[in-house]
Amino acid sequence: MPAVLRRPAAAPSEPPGVTDRFARVVRSRPFEIAIVVVIMANGVVLGLETYAHLGGFRPALRWLEWSFRVIFVAEIAARVLAYGRRPQDFFRQGWNVFDFVVVAAIFLPGLHGDSALLRVLRVARVLRLVRFSPGLRTIVAALLRSLPGVGGFLALAVVTLYVYGMAGWLIFGGTYPEQYGDIGRALLTLFVLLSLETLPDLIEQGLAVSPWTLLYYVSFVVITVNLLLNILIAVIVNSMEEARRLEMTERLAPGYDEDGDGVPDEVDRIALTQRLDDLRAVIAELERELRIDRDDLAGRAHRDGERRAGR
Amino acid sequence: MPAVLRRPAAAPSEPPGVTDRFARVVRSRPFEIAIVVVIMANGVVLGLETYAHLGGFRPALRWLEWSFRVIFVAEIAARVLAYGRRPQDFFRQGWNVFDFVVVAAIFLPGLHGDSALLRVLRVARVLRLVRFSPGLRTIVAALLRSLPGVGGFLALAVVTLYVYGMAGWLIFGGTYPEQYGDIGRALLTLFVLLSLETLPDLIEQGLAVSPWTLLYYVSFVVITVNLLLNILIAVIVNSMEEARRLEMTERLAPGYDEDGDGVPDEVDRIALTQRLDDLRAVIAELERELRIDRDDLAGRAHRDGERRAGR
Amino acid sequence: MPAVLRRPAAAPSEPPGVTDRFARVVRSRPFEIAIVVVIMANGVVLGLETYAHLGGFRPALRWLEWSFRVIFVAEIAARVLAYGRRPQDFFRQGWNVFDFVVVAAIFLPGLHGDSALLRVLRVARVLRLVRFSPGLRTIVAALLRSLPGVGGFLALAVVTLYVYGMAGWLIFGGTYPEQYGDIGRALLTLFVLLSLETLPDLIEQGLAVSPWTLLYYVSFVVITVNLLLNILIAVIVNSMEEARRLEMTERLAPGYDEDGDGVPDEVDRIALTQRLDDLRAVIAELERELRIDRDDLAGRAHRDGERRAGR
Amino acid sequence: MPAVLRRPAAAPSEPPGVTDRFARVVRSRPFEIAIVVVIMANGVVLGLETYAHLGGFRPALRWLEWSFRVIFVAEIAARVLAYGRRPQDFFRQGWNVFDFVVVAAIFLPGLHGDSALLRVLRVARVLRLVRFSPGLRTIVAALLRSLPGVGGFLALAVVTLYVYGMAGWLIFGGTYPEQYGDIGRALLTLFVLLSLETLPDLIEQGLAVSPWTLLYYVSFVVITVNLLLNILIAVIVNSMEEARRLEMTERLAPGYDEDGDGVPDEVDRIALTQRLDDLRAVIAELERELRIDRDDLAGRAHRDGERRAGR
Repeated sequence: MPAVLRRPAAAPSEPPGVTDRFARVVRSRPFEIAIVVVIMANGVVLGLETYAHLGGFRPALRWLEWSFRVIFVAEIAARVLAYGRRPQDFFRQGWNVFDFVVVAAIFLPGLHGDSALLRVLRVARVLRLVRFSPGLRTIVAALLRSLPGVGGFLALAVVTLYVYGMAGWLIFGGTYPEQYGDIGRALLTLFVLLSLETLPDLIEQGLAVSPWTLLYYVSFVVITVNLLLNILIAVIVNSMEEARRLEMTERLAPGYDEDGDGVPDEVDRIALTQRLDDLRAVIAELERELRIDRDDLAGRAHRDGERRAGR
Repeated sequence: MPAVLRRPAAAPSEPPGVTDRFARVVRSRPFEIAIVVVIMANGVVLGLETYAHLGGFRPALRWLEWSFRVIFVAEIAARVLAYGRRPQDFFRQGWNVFDFVVVAAIFLPGLHGDSALLRVLRVARVLRLVRFSPGLRTIVAALLRSLPGVGGFLALAVVTLYVYGMAGWLIFGGTYPEQYGDIGRALLTLFVLLSLETLPDLIEQGLAVSPWTLLYYVSFVVITVNLLLNILIAVIVNSMEEARRLEMTERLAPGYDEDGDGVPDEVDRIALTQRLDDLRAVIAELERELRIDRDDLAGRAHRDGERRAGR
Repeated sequence: MPAVLRRPAAAPSEPPGVTDRFARVVRSRPFEIAIVVVIMANGVVLGLETYAHLGGFRPALRWLEWSFRVIFVAEIAARVLAYGRRPQDFFRQGWNVFDFVVVAAIFLPGLHGDSALLRVLRVARVLRLVRFSPGLRTIVAALLRSLPGVGGFLALAVVTLYVYGMAGWLIFGGTYPEQYGDIGRALLTLFVLLSLETLPDLIEQGLAVSPWTLLYYVSFVVITVNLLLNILIAVIVNSMEEARRLEMTERLAPGYDEDGDGVPDEVDRIALTQRLDDLRAVIAELERELRIDRDDLAGRAHRDGERRAGR
Repeated sequence: MPAVLRRPAAAPSEPPGVTDRFARVVRSRPFEIAIVVVIMANGVVLGLETYAHLGGFRPALRWLEWSFRVIFVAEIAARVLAYGRRPQDFFRQGWNVFDFVVVAAIFLPGLHGDSALLRVLRVARVLRLVRFSPGLRTIVAALLRSLPGVGGFLALAVVTLYVYGMAGWLIFGGTYPEQYGDIGRALLTLFVLLSLETLPDLIEQGLAVSPWTLLYYVSFVVITVNLLLNILIAVIVNSMEEARRLEMTERLAPGYDEDGDGVPDEVDRIALTQRLDDLRAVIAELERELRIDRDDLAGRAHRDGERRAGR
């Protein structure tokens, strides 16, 4: 079953043809390394182009840019061809769509030359590095997956910021229109204050209005720094746990997704993750059992505590 | 028993009347979602009102504000009516009191128009979002419950700040009255110094008095940054543990507090939390037993250590 | 045995006399609370004195200061008398010596009036709060005990700072004598740079000398921020572990050090801490046994790994 | 076997001669302490030399510097001689090569006087402190070994910085050539922005171009601060785990590497580390077994969950 996930090419019964050969090339290690090297070279060329006084090098850079375009088009074409008679399957993966858009954009009429959109798309090509590195992909996936866990903290931070923004507008709106003239400016002022850079200046400004404004700034800094640290630590803990889990399943399923020899992988990684979740459920179950078995003991300890407290 | 906690309405024996119907509506999911949407719309309108050049939109905003008032009054009335013949029970929950005060304030004479207090109360309505989101409520509760655990650190930080403030006044009181003229200014200077923003300037100031003032600033920064980080990490660890415990009890008690169908919940969450505490006590008990059972082993290890050390 | 630690008063065989009564008063809860209140009032009076325009309040504050002196002298006298015929035992505890010095200083000739040393000693009285709060004492003890664990990191940070200071003097000594004129100034510049406040200015300064100075600043920031975070996290983890251990022993020895009824405490806290260490040793022992029992399993897993790697 | 690692001198069968005596001296505790003291004195002298107005002390410092040179040359000579007939083995250890280069440099022609290279090499001698302190060596090793674990995060941070640098050049390249004139300047601007010091100024600059540039700065700050904290926490967690592992093996192998009496150490530390890894593998194995044994239980829990969800 996992083989279907990894080998979107022709069915096993079909004789090995052009499609199969493309699929083998595209999934081979040298192909990936070559593309990574080309992407990095592309990034270096993009960086060099930012220097104004290039002299004779500019034609060379332009020529290199054209080579990169040819290589990327060939790469995408090969990867689409590897899907054989079902090229539409290629667009089922998010990264494939990203690759296609970034590379196909050069064929859009009116994008030739130095237009801003083309430049952005050329910079976006560098992001394809993430797609080719399993490590980076894992980290990005872990970071993204850890976001829901901090949704609550983030919502609370937004509510806090908004309420403080409104309060700031009420207090300082008339005196400092530059910083608190409307809710947008107030929110910006408070966002920058999160870096604590503007704290001394803002407190001084506030003291000129009233000593009570100290309460506003001190409470804001204490509450939001606390909340932000909670968010950051939660993100970190979540993503590290996620990464550890992925790593563990990788170790439990040796050779998975790494050999690329076309043989179906032995263990499905998703199933393993599920089973580790099951393990956690079993541990919770054990905890419950332990509680029942030892209830008399705990009860006694509890009663002791009450007797002590009730003296 | 838990049903009593959740359904403060009429007794089960009473025939279902107006009270019961109000209680059902008030506890229903669509009602809560509708109120959340209205609160958020209220927040957006409050934000829009901060922009000076609104032109023709201002009457519309005023009309919206009046609609919000009507909706909130109706909401509170419905929630009070859901308590049937015992409306005083409504005020037993802190959040209910908050809701009532924030909404009822508009009926106070002299608060019509653009008075400052009314504006503050209107902003305070946004905080009701926390009350309607179980996630936010959990986080706020966890953060508050983690405070006692850091009380010691906080007290130590206050003592440290006060002693350094007095010392700062003794050292710099005459030279820099702006920063250290009295204990209030000295404490403010040191509080802002906690953000490390003013460190370079203050050290330069201090060096102009004496090179020994370096000791004052360096020791202050090292001690308080250390203490503050201890406080923050303690808050974070406590609140995460608290959240994990709440989450675990939630998983152990599926469907608790979520269905809203009026059927008493199967497990009391508070009782579960208690039992988890019992489990911790059992583990401590086990540790004690383990110590006794293995005393010879530990003793031997200990004696080995002494023999080694005593060579 | 623990009774000896807690009750330094007369031997049990002696008839209860004045000494014993002093000892009982001194160790009683109301006495401690009264002294804490007096110390806090003393702190408030010290703070009030920093305000210049006190008018008619100054004589009242002076009178209060004299009352505090009388109370503190009486307190110390009572605590010394509680030691009966062996008053020298009073000075065996560090905090007792601190108390005595801070209070006795007012009897030194030449310290009457507003001399700087007397003021410092008066501020130091506020620190006695730590001595009377078991919670603060525990935290301070835990923080101090966690220091040896970070000695290595600290030494490495000092070596790093010194080497960068010397390198900074070599690179910038001639160009920026203000910042890097000698090793002292260089170390101060780098210490302040640890707060990252002066990073933009210093990098700009450095770029004016040579683009290669970027390497100096970037490597310094990366290495020291890393090291400092390691130190802080190590301190925090150590002190929290220490605090948890103390808390656990406190729970295992209920009533210890809390009743103050003169009955010798049941369990010696230090002995318990020792036994918890033994428990850790036992766990390590178990780990060793587990390793031996399962060696074949581990060996197999290891061989599998090698076979896989050696393909 | 471990004896070979520790005693690189003559074979045991050989009669104890000059080589053996050198080896014993070089590995003795007093020798190490003496060298550490000399290195620290050397550091102090280097620091003193940075002060311009030394007056009559300068000849004394020069004389001290020559004494240090003689001592270091003698030390290196003794340590090379301790290797007996195989002096080339001396250069197998990285720290030995470092020691040799730093000390031998003074014999290079053209390095006499106050040349910059000689000064750098003299400062580098201070780093030899790390080599003589087992604690510092362990920490440095742990920090270095924790780097591979954060390689992914670091690569992601570099890609993020580069893409934002390119985007910054596209957006601000024309308006603010000072900050974003080319990719180098843009990367420097963004690196300094990581310290959040320049956030208020840059946001103000950006707002002058367009309010949309807020998205650029806010997203950059949120993403990179998040990434950097992930890196730092990962480094810390890795290095602490590493340190704990080393400490544990040290405790399991008492006396290892510490006695210096020439008797082969009982346990090989590397082997122990290996066995602890085996222990971890066994635990993973247990996890797998546990999953199988309790599958019915977990399955039931799972089915319950599905039944509940499918209502």
